[in-house]
Amino acid sequence: MPLVGVVVGSKSDEPQMQETLRILNEMGIEHELRVLSAHRTPEKTAEYARSAQERGIEVIIGAAGGSAALPGTLAAWTDLPVIGVPLTSSELKGMDALLSIAQMPPGVPVATVAVGSWGARNAAYLAAAILSLKHATINDAYKAFRQKQRKG
Amino acid sequence: MPLVGVVVGSKSDEPQMQETLRILNEMGIEHELRVLSAHRTPEKTAEYARSAQERGIEVIIGAAGGSAALPGTLAAWTDLPVIGVPLTSSELKGMDALLSIAQMPPGVPVATVAVGSWGARNAAYLAAAILSLKHATINDAYKAFRQKQRKG
Amino acid sequence: MPLVGVVVGSKSDEPQMQETLRILNEMGIEHELRVLSAHRTPEKTAEYARSAQERGIEVIIGAAGGSAALPGTLAAWTDLPVIGVPLTSSELKGMDALLSIAQMPPGVPVATVAVGSWGARNAAYLAAAILSLKHATINDAYKAFRQKQRKG
Amino acid sequence: MPLVGVVVGSKSDEPQMQETLRILNEMGIEHELRVLSAHRTPEKTAEYARSAQERGIEVIIGAAGGSAALPGTLAAWTDLPVIGVPLTSSELKGMDALLSIAQMPPGVPVATVAVGSWGARNAAYLAAAILSLKHATINDAYKAFRQKQRKG
Amino acid sequence: MPLVGVVVGSKSDEPQMQETLRILNEMGIEHELRVLSAHRTPEKTAEYARSAQERGIEVIIGAAGGSAALPGTLAAWTDLPVIGVPLTSSELKGMDALLSIAQMPPGVPVATVAVGSWGARNAAYLAAAILSLKHATINDAYKAFRQKQRKG
Amino acid sequence: MPLVGVVVGSKSDEPQMQETLRILNEMGIEHELRVLSAHRTPEKTAEYARSAQERGIEVIIGAAGGSAALPGTLAAWTDLPVIGVPLTSSELKGMDALLSIAQMPPGVPVATVAVGSWGARNAAYLAAAILSLKHATINDAYKAFRQKQRKG
Amino acid sequence: MPLVGVVVGSKSDEPQMQETLRILNEMGIEHELRVLSAHRTPEKTAEYARSAQERGIEVIIGAAGGSAALPGTLAAWTDLPVIGVPLTSSELKGMDALLSIAQMPPGVPVATVAVGSWGARNAAYLAAAILSLKHATINDAYKAFRQKQRKG
Amino acid sequence: MPLVGVVVGSKSDEPQMQETLRILNEMGIEHELRVLSAHRTPEKTAEYARSAQERGIEVIIGAAGGSAALPGTLAAWTDLPVIGVPLTSSELKGMDALLSIAQMPPGVPVATVAVGSWGARNAAYLAAAILSLKHATINDAYKAFRQKQRKG
Repeated sequence: MPLVGVVVGSKSDEPQMQETLRILNEMGIEHELRVLSAHRTPEKTAEYARSAQERGIEVIIGAAGGSAALPGTLAAWTDLPVIGVPLTSSELKGMDALLSIAQMPPGVPVATVAVGSWGARNAAYLAAAILSLKHATINDAYKAFRQKQRKG
Repeated sequence: MPLVGVVVGSKSDEPQMQETLRILNEMGIEHELRVLSAHRTPEKTAEYARSAQERGIEVIIGAAGGSAALPGTLAAWTDLPVIGVPLTSSELKGMDALLSIAQMPPGVPVATVAVGSWGARNAAYLAAAILSLKHATINDAYKAFRQKQRKG
Repeated sequence: MPLVGVVVGSKSDEPQMQETLRILNEMGIEHELRVLSAHRTPEKTAEYARSAQERGIEVIIGAAGGSAALPGTLAAWTDLPVIGVPLTSSELKGMDALLSIAQMPPGVPVATVAVGSWGARNAAYLAAAILSLKHATINDAYKAFRQKQRKG
Repeated sequence: MPLVGVVVGSKSDEPQMQETLRILNEMGIEHELRVLSAHRTPEKTAEYARSAQERGIEVIIGAAGGSAALPGTLAAWTDLPVIGVPLTSSELKGMDALLSIAQMPPGVPVATVAVGSWGARNAAYLAAAILSLKHATINDAYKAFRQKQRKG
Repeated sequence: MPLVGVVVGSKSDEPQMQETLRILNEMGIEHELRVLSAHRTPEKTAEYARSAQERGIEVIIGAAGGSAALPGTLAAWTDLPVIGVPLTSSELKGMDALLSIAQMPPGVPVATVAVGSWGARNAAYLAAAILSLKHATINDAYKAFRQKQRKG
Repeated sequence: MPLVGVVVGSKSDEPQMQETLRILNEMGIEHELRVLSAHRTPEKTAEYARSAQERGIEVIIGAAGGSAALPGTLAAWTDLPVIGVPLTSSELKGMDALLSIAQMPPGVPVATVAVGSWGARNAAYLAAAILSLKHATINDAYKAFRQKQRKG
Repeated sequence: MPLVGVVVGSKSDEPQMQETLRILNEMGIEHELRVLSAHRTPEKTAEYARSAQERGIEVIIGAAGGSAALPGTLAAWTDLPVIGVPLTSSELKGMDALLSIAQMPPGVPVATVAVGSWGARNAAYLAAAILSLKHATINDAYKAFRQKQRKG
Repeated sequence: MPLVGVVVGSKSDEPQMQETLRILNEMGIEHELRVLSAHRTPEKTAEYARSAQERGIEVIIGAAGGSAALPGTLAAWTDLPVIGVPLTSSELKGMDALLSIAQMPPGVPVATVAVGSWGARNAAYLAAAILSLKHATINDAYKAFRQKQRKG
């Protein structure tokens, strides 16, 4: 049963998120991948977010470029923590997506990470950090990673 | 029966949109005003957009600041033309809203106008220009306005 | 008889607008393509915009990079709805064109879409949405497109 | 025993974070407030972050302006989830802090929220969403807040 | 007979250009002031620019905010040197006007000066420098100003 | 005897300015090319600017990237009209050079043109427009170019 | 005999630099203040920088807004370490000055500090850090300041 | 015994700093290179900075991209002058790193140089300028370089 739902706004954004999936695997975190657009398929996106918690999802990662409404839309329809990854798909190369995802209005938080590949990786690590509060095996894996990393 | 639905993302954004209402009045365009948030009240926003056309609405104007997902969310749930007004409510003073509203992904268009009060006024004029294609009295009012304006 | 006039600021901008033409075709919207510069050929541009309505044009799409005065200039000389597409032709890669097109002063609206290829496509979809208010066959084509798109 | 540590980079940043404290109170989340600078008091900051988990802290919120290294520095010294709030204290009014906090390198995630007062509030809500995964009473309070908010 | 035409895009921009007029006076340069909008009054603007040279104008100064198409439009319709002053009238406070005025396409030059009051003053000095090539009394006045200034 | 002095900040910037030279040739404007740095060779730069007028130079074009102090420094040491071309040589790709050249303080004007190749071409056209006020043959060549260009 | 020369680009910039003077006093560093403009008074500026070292100056601090060529110009004429403070005097409020000062070409370094008052203070501290390498009493004062600061 | 410590935030940043090492060699300045991350290896970074002075280091150069906390963190733990080089490693290509490094809070100065290769070279030259105050042979080498450079 997946703990993390990774949602990308468009099929063409999938390659940018392979690192997210790889790191979730490394941390032993079960996950699922969906292609859902806040703008093109709003009903499916709403349905996904609304039902995520009852299906056992604990953290949602949304990745999108340009207007990048996906993470905010997922956050609008769920109470789970949502992590937003700004992608570089548009001609403005991610600054648009960063502002769209970061500047959420009060009451509906999104946890924004860095633009592009750095953010794709940190989205997985942030999910691990959050899930570590509750899941001992994830905590062990994440702590081991951080400890090894601190040794340089 | 209103032809234009003016939607603001937050109660505190209403004053910025008074000029929109004033100009719609001047052009003789019936309209309604709603406070709906893409993030805080996603279901009401979806419901509003989905039912707008059958209620006779022909153009929707959405105004929001920061992430400013409102116009795009309205556009996601309706096939009507949607005009987006980037407001200056967040600390980044409108550049965030402009990029969020303008950088819509292909397939779900939003007609973006200028940030703040200029856009609030042009949203009404753009609605008038669009409705002029079909409604003779609006066409007369809008043409008269433009003709007088061209005289300086 | 064309309903939509697509105007590009320079011959070298034409390739960026092929998607606009393709989508207008798909929506069954007759159109014409012109190369006209607000700065290099102001008289021809003014003449085109001034005569567009009497020739049956209902929506004008203007695409330009850099200063990108084309959409605003077209809007200055016509009362028809004008859609502006910011292109990436200059060294500043579209941010200049986006601000130039979006920040129109009150009284002369332009409907701005996204920078580059996303905007080139959405200009056609926005034209379709506007024309759908009046033309049943375009309405059918656009609604079919949106409905299929919403199914993902 | 506090679950959330709220850290501000400078005494003068405290007023901007009062809303964070108010909302944490509303959600029934025990918390503590510290003034610690990544740059001026690096040892105290490191010590705080390193010992936070053993003292029972589960989420750290760091708020700073300008270079805004505080959230990233806290994240460097702890494995707990860290939320970063970009403040507007410098002359560049928050764009600097947003980029500094959001653009964390892979391996050390920070959950960035909006610039200034919007982010100050969402930092508390994001902490509530994260803690809701584990703490039933926080989950109840946060769900009640979101449910009420969705009603508009 | 005026040598310099100062054109502002809107009545409300006039106060920002008082310094231009004052300095032109100081340099003994005859001038005239017009309020003309590239967007609202395109015909009058074109007419002004087209007839300027035959009326004895040698340099045109255009000042506008936001899309700021005025200097470029004047340049499109005249072969005289045109100086563009980006004003801060829009919500984006001049960055939009600077990019709009500076990023002119090849073939239609505009001499851009600084945003706001600095540019308003330098537009007059630049006009003086240009006219000094031909008019001895302006040359004397401008050289005297620069010489005194260099003494600090 | 050259009428226009074209100065580039660095040997590696020369290719970006070939179009300037080509257009000056086309307009029949004699010119010279110098490599001079405001920062690396301040004395030579000052000497060049100070002596330009007595050597018969009437317009100076300065092109530089990054800090791009060259046009402003030339303007500091001469009373001739100086045209500044922001180049894309630095990692920030011209936005830095544009702001450095455009934001000259009151009293020392620089005529800024577009970033990179557009500006390289317009620098020559602007020089032609300025020199046309005084030199009949340049006026003929420039008017012929503009007239032909206006025909599209 | 002053060790540090503080140079501001304009009389009106002096108030922004009072904190620099205060901190230099606190550190026991003798200094002098000059108003010199790279653009308006280039000869005086060159003369100041060229003669600074022989007069015993060891560090120069240059502060300017807008094009902000002052620090780079000082660095061009001296081999001493030059610290640049971007001020907020222009309408673009310091982003222009930051880029102008930071983006110096290779071969002529400037040590850039933060925009405005933060930078005005850090310019003095950076001068103290540099001078501490050689002057024991400054080293004592600076170390004492840093040590006290680290205690919070 | 090295006088300059060059620290890069990540192994992949090393190639961007080769020019720094080459120029330090040319100036006859002994140096060492370390890979240390403010975020991934905070303890090693703190230890390096804290012990640098007693090991004879007189200037530290820190280079990093994105959040780029490295120079500021080094400056937090040492009283030595720290030079910061913003690198282009992140998707935002150096603007993020520039703001992060330049906008240091008062009390902990960092000497920021240009983004990328220009800054990599100027970091070495700035170190040379600083060390020239105390070390005669470095002073000779740096003065010779500058003198030769001034000859063009």
